[in-house]
Amino acid sequence: MGSKPGADDLSLRALLRLEPGAPVDLAAHPPDAMPGFEGGKQRGIDETAALGKELATLQERLYAASSAGDRRRVLLVLQGMDTSGKGGTVKHVVGHFNPAGCRIRAFKTPTPEERGHHFLWRVGNVLPGAGEIGIFDRSHYEDVLVVRVHGLVPRSVWSRRFDEINAWERALADDGVAFVKVFLHIGFEEQRRRLLARLDRPHKHWKFSPSDIAERELWPGYQRAYAEALTRCSTEAAPWYLVPANRKWYRNWAVSRLLFEQLRELDPQYPAGDFDVARSRARLLAE
Amino acid sequence: MGSKPGADDLSLRALLRLEPGAPVDLAAHPPDAMPGFEGGKQRGIDETAALGKELATLQERLYAASSAGDRRRVLLVLQGMDTSGKGGTVKHVVGHFNPAGCRIRAFKTPTPEERGHHFLWRVGNVLPGAGEIGIFDRSHYEDVLVVRVHGLVPRSVWSRRFDEINAWERALADDGVAFVKVFLHIGFEEQRRRLLARLDRPHKHWKFSPSDIAERELWPGYQRAYAEALTRCSTEAAPWYLVPANRKWYRNWAVSRLLFEQLRELDPQYPAGDFDVARSRARLLAE
Repeated sequence: MGSKPGADDLSLRALLRLEPGAPVDLAAHPPDAMPGFEGGKQRGIDETAALGKELATLQERLYAASSAGDRRRVLLVLQGMDTSGKGGTVKHVVGHFNPAGCRIRAFKTPTPEERGHHFLWRVGNVLPGAGEIGIFDRSHYEDVLVVRVHGLVPRSVWSRRFDEINAWERALADDGVAFVKVFLHIGFEEQRRRLLARLDRPHKHWKFSPSDIAERELWPGYQRAYAEALTRCSTEAAPWYLVPANRKWYRNWAVSRLLFEQLRELDPQYPAGDFDVARSRARLLAE
Repeated sequence: MGSKPGADDLSLRALLRLEPGAPVDLAAHPPDAMPGFEGGKQRGIDETAALGKELATLQERLYAASSAGDRRRVLLVLQGMDTSGKGGTVKHVVGHFNPAGCRIRAFKTPTPEERGHHFLWRVGNVLPGAGEIGIFDRSHYEDVLVVRVHGLVPRSVWSRRFDEINAWERALADDGVAFVKVFLHIGFEEQRRRLLARLDRPHKHWKFSPSDIAERELWPGYQRAYAEALTRCSTEAAPWYLVPANRKWYRNWAVSRLLFEQLRELDPQYPAGDFDVARSRARLLAE
């Protein structure tokens, strides 16, 4: 399953976890690194495919367990700069799972109704239920990122949100939500390449807006905002993982592996049927 | 793309459509037939995979078009007896698409809140938005099926629902919803085999309940209820398609093909970017 001898013992979570309480310095994390992986692209793709089979079974077990009262569920939170691959990761990860058991939500600019509520309201409305896997493409963290960088609310408001997020996530974790919060870390040059690639393909122009360039000019502010959010909100209850994301295949492998390790730790079990199998078989055959 | 010479001209929709106004006789439709297809299982699987690539592109075009104001969206409605493969079809069909653009919902026994509303309320709440593909595993049709067979509301109530459904679907179709309503038609013996298969595998016991057998004993009543629903609610605005579903690979091919024909007819277009590409490229390179 893993990428090198003894890889069953690999804990990618331990390698990628941003330690609670430790200041995060994004510049110290090369975005083209491949922590926990040895080998090249084809090997990564093959191992991700193998992980996919394990993930499908673990998801079915999680879903099956919920039918017998197990309330546990998983929430994958994806954050990262524009073009960091949040959408591509959603597509790839869900490809492993039965989509009927996934609750996928991409968060965009809040609607007027959403702005009329506390910032955790809109994410709270679409959490995964028991046995489900929730996947957030952007999340409540936008309220300490884009909101901060653009000065949409005063510092006094966004600065109290770190504690509010931590309290909220802690309560959910205590209630059975297993958080897998992933920061997709790409480099400034890689973003340039990806934006240029969109310009090169007319069929991708709909994904591009000149405002993407304006956002890019705020790169240093975003990096500062991310560093503080990751520092303040990587907790024991809901840690952040930093996934170097310049290489798409490594990103897919790493997120799949993080989910695999999380689900393996949950170790959900198929419930035993509480009915008489022989009697049901006889009834079915008798009709 | 199709299954025989000239298959590009194949209209599976024309073959499987239940003609509006014509009485439906389910006994006249063999559940192991393969309308529109010639060849065997492997060919069916290969052609479905090829259709998948077309579907992915068409979905992206539908989603892209919505970013420029195209409000059209698709709603796949799946109905069928227990074990007819609704869940398997969802999983297979979504596998073709980017799941982020799909809105999947499985409808179960209504909650007290749902029962406190008109029966179209809960489905109306989770319709696909512009550019999305909605997928319903069961639907508002349960309110003229299980509700009727079990006598949960008086005939005077369920019998008026056919017209209510038709008016509602017609309004949505006029507003840009392309309905693909599919009845997965399996046989009584095939259902027996599938239920027995669940009993044979302990890991499938959680999917089984003795109440499944009780439901099966109501088979004739369900077939009558389905026949009337399909007769009354196959309309020009939102026709029903009958897909013989004893063969899973044919079912997957047929539903994929129906979606392909529908999306091809919609023919959504990538919007042209409304920005100066050369200028954006220059700005990106200058930074």
